Amino acid sequence: MTTPHDYARTHAERFKQEMIDLLAIPSVSTQPEHNADVERAAEWIAANMRRIGLTTVEIHPTAWHPVVYGEWLGAGPNAPTVLVYGHYDVQPAEMADGWHSDPFIPTEREGKIYARGAIDSKSNVMAQMKAAESYLQSGKTAVNIKLMFEGDEESNSGAIAGFVAAHKERLKADIVAVCDGSMADLHQPDLAYGLRGISCMELEVWGPKQDLHSGHYGGTVHNPVQALAEIITQLHHADGSVAVPGFYDEVRPLDTDERAELAKALPWIEQEWRDVAAAPQQWGEPAYNLHERIGARPTLEINGIRGGYAGDGFKTVLPGKALAKISCRLVADQHPQRIYERVRDYVAQITPPTVRSELRYLESGDPALIDRHAPAVQAYARAIERSWSKEPIYVREGGSIPVVVELQQNIPAPVVLMSFGYKGCAAHGPNEHVYLDLWYRGIDTMLYFYDEVNKGL
Amino acid sequence: MTTPHDYARTHAERFKQEMIDLLAIPSVSTQPEHNADVERAAEWIAANMRRIGLTTVEIHPTAWHPVVYGEWLGAGPNAPTVLVYGHYDVQPAEMADGWHSDPFIPTEREGKIYARGAIDSKSNVMAQMKAAESYLQSGKTAVNIKLMFEGDEESNSGAIAGFVAAHKERLKADIVAVCDGSMADLHQPDLAYGLRGISCMELEVWGPKQDLHSGHYGGTVHNPVQALAEIITQLHHADGSVAVPGFYDEVRPLDTDERAELAKALPWIEQEWRDVAAAPQQWGEPAYNLHERIGARPTLEINGIRGGYAGDGFKTVLPGKALAKISCRLVADQHPQRIYERVRDYVAQITPPTVRSELRYLESGDPALIDRHAPAVQAYARAIERSWSKEPIYVREGGSIPVVVELQQNIPAPVVLMSFGYKGCAAHGPNEHVYLDLWYRGIDTMLYFYDEVNKGL
Repeated sequence: MTTPHDYARTHAERFKQEMIDLLAIPSVSTQPEHNADVERAAEWIAANMRRIGLTTVEIHPTAWHPVVYGEWLGAGPNAPTVLVYGHYDVQPAEMADGWHSDPFIPTEREGKIYARGAIDSKSNVMAQMKAAESYLQSGKTAVNIKLMFEGDEESNSGAIAGFVAAHKERLKADIVAVCDGSMADLHQPDLAYGLRGISCMELEVWGPKQDLHSGHYGGTVHNPVQALAEIITQLHHADGSVAVPGFYDEVRPLDTDERAELAKALPWIEQEWRDVAAAPQQWGEPAYNLHERIGARPTLEINGIRGGYAGDGFKTVLPGKALAKISCRLVADQHPQRIYERVRDYVAQITPPTVRSELRYLESGDPALIDRHAPAVQAYARAIERSWSKEPIYVREGGSIPVVVELQQNIPAPVVLMSFGYKGCAAHGPNEHVYLDLWYRGIDTMLYFYDEVNKGL
Repeated sequence: MTTPHDYARTHAERFKQEMIDLLAIPSVSTQPEHNADVERAAEWIAANMRRIGLTTVEIHPTAWHPVVYGEWLGAGPNAPTVLVYGHYDVQPAEMADGWHSDPFIPTEREGKIYARGAIDSKSNVMAQMKAAESYLQSGKTAVNIKLMFEGDEESNSGAIAGFVAAHKERLKADIVAVCDGSMADLHQPDLAYGLRGISCMELEVWGPKQDLHSGHYGGTVHNPVQALAEIITQLHHADGSVAVPGFYDEVRPLDTDERAELAKALPWIEQEWRDVAAAPQQWGEPAYNLHERIGARPTLEINGIRGGYAGDGFKTVLPGKALAKISCRLVADQHPQRIYERVRDYVAQITPPTVRSELRYLESGDPALIDRHAPAVQAYARAIERSWSKEPIYVREGGSIPVVVELQQNIPAPVVLMSFGYKGCAAHGPNEHVYLDLWYRGIDTMLYFYDEVNKGL
């Protein structure tokens, strides 16, 4: 009899081709000109779901982009049910950002597929789809499967929150598997139990009523770019800690046990930092190590800045205004809106009288911290051990998966965070890619997880 | 017999239409895609020169854009000769910058023409052309006229320097009239005798080897935008003075007489600042008044900044690099290259070890200071008095006209700086315009100047 693992191996080449097909669809959720592409990606996934054996497949329209949902409940009402969450939308990408091949023409080089969404997160979507296919097509019937993929994760629209709240009953499960993110090392599996939240804002500074000639007015007007730089500088202390009053007030302290657990993963996280970030030196809060800074401490980051003329050539303009995009990564038990308000009040306080400023709240997501000792998490740990022949290390992720909080609030089941890919794969950056061997192992891991769930938690 | 002034009045409507025709040509010298337009503008001017009665008209190719030259030497070798300099190229302009009408479809509203180049400097070019036409076509033969217009002023390419050096003999004159810039008030003529130089640079800061996911690495990498902001902040002291060591070393001090002269213009300059700059408060070196800060003190200005993603929506990127365009406006006796070197050394010194930086030298122009008591300047003062029925106030300009230094070095004749337009006309900004009544008065002023020159200096 064929095992699900045999089935996956036999169909490995086709699986890869299907992932490539999905990667070729530029489902950029933040850019309205790609709305039709997001729609097309949803339809592609729904069609694939039908082919792999899910019995009910639906594309649910939302106020933003559709949620694709498919289920197979053939194991019966008394069998355990796994609900899988993922997202099929991607970040914007342009050749000009430094891509070596078109971000939407997936290209295979040295065992990797290069494409926008390769690591974040279409490979995760496709690992789940192909694990479900392998499970069902090899005749396994022990676990009910529900797959739910959203198209708004990168735009943080909140569509999935409404969907989950409206379909609580339908989505009922014994375990919620959130499949996104990635691992710190190529050869050492990890298991994440923490995710940072986020609070996104935009800071605008203006002074003169419009752009001015820098000769006619230079030296008499507080340059808005300079004023913005002065404000940005005051958002951190010299040691790298955030200077906004009250910023750390609600941060849940780390206990000794957890610091010891986090320290185990430090060598891998430091290696990955050297390989991927590769900045001249580490930076950040001196009282915390690299792992803690990434996963257990909040940040304030400048995501972008613009003002005046910074293109080719030179324009002797004194800019009328300047703008910075700012986001705070948050940890338990911080609240996005409250953090925004503290940054806003501080910015108002430090804005000099020579300019005006406004800090606008854009979007947010709550942080999540999962009990790493929960049985469902431990079942996943065993699945990893079986596919990797290695125990996972426990990590707190620096990224945000806002839906986790929505799922926790609406579905009374433990959440397990799953990552199959490697963090050094340029998520959100140019030349994003996925390692094919890790991807195939992800499918294997998910199949072992179904088996562990079947054995009982 | 028709006077030149009568001729100008009779043909006023046609003169305006011709200026509109020239403004409609997008002769943007810094953008290669407009090279053909710059060429077209040169041809348009040459054709117009031939029509107005100049006997020798030439388009001189240069390594960059052509110089258009035309002369009428019918007054004979013993008559005085006036050489006029101007530029027909313009700054870039896009509707997105906030224009209310297409910058290259000149639009008349309430006595003003709105178009890129309207004030800087095609109205000056056309005032000179139409003054020459009025002078010659009304039968005046007392003064020789040489008109020279370059197409690289906004790109600061240096083509005109080579042209002037190569044609010293041909350009010989008794007075060099540099016609660019604009006046501080609509109702009070001024006479500029100082121009600031400029030193343009570009500062790049980078840290990680590429853009990173702000969740995966935020809090552990010194954000290049933030580091750039920190460097920018340290370029000035809190009081608005430049913090670069040695920056003010060569600045020629103001004497009591000159400070008194500059103070006379202060009310107009302050009014214009309130009308045009309209920032919440004045800013700059506390020991100097607004006029002195603009014309007699050097500056360091951020002309543009870019880094990460600052467009619509939000991209949770930790930028790999950031860039700022910086220019220093210089006064006598500062040297552009030396100032660049001091800024470069200071930036290297204050760049933190967590990032790398580079300051690149882009382009420059020397400052110029003219003896305001020289006979040629005084002849121009009388011409202003005749056309305005008002004495001019003396001002030091904040802008740069690098060619003045080249002309001073190559042509042994006094330079007179002429400005016919109003400074509040958004040079280099959106909705640049020219007041038609000031423009017509500029033609009149130039005609009185020819008369004063004929009377003898």
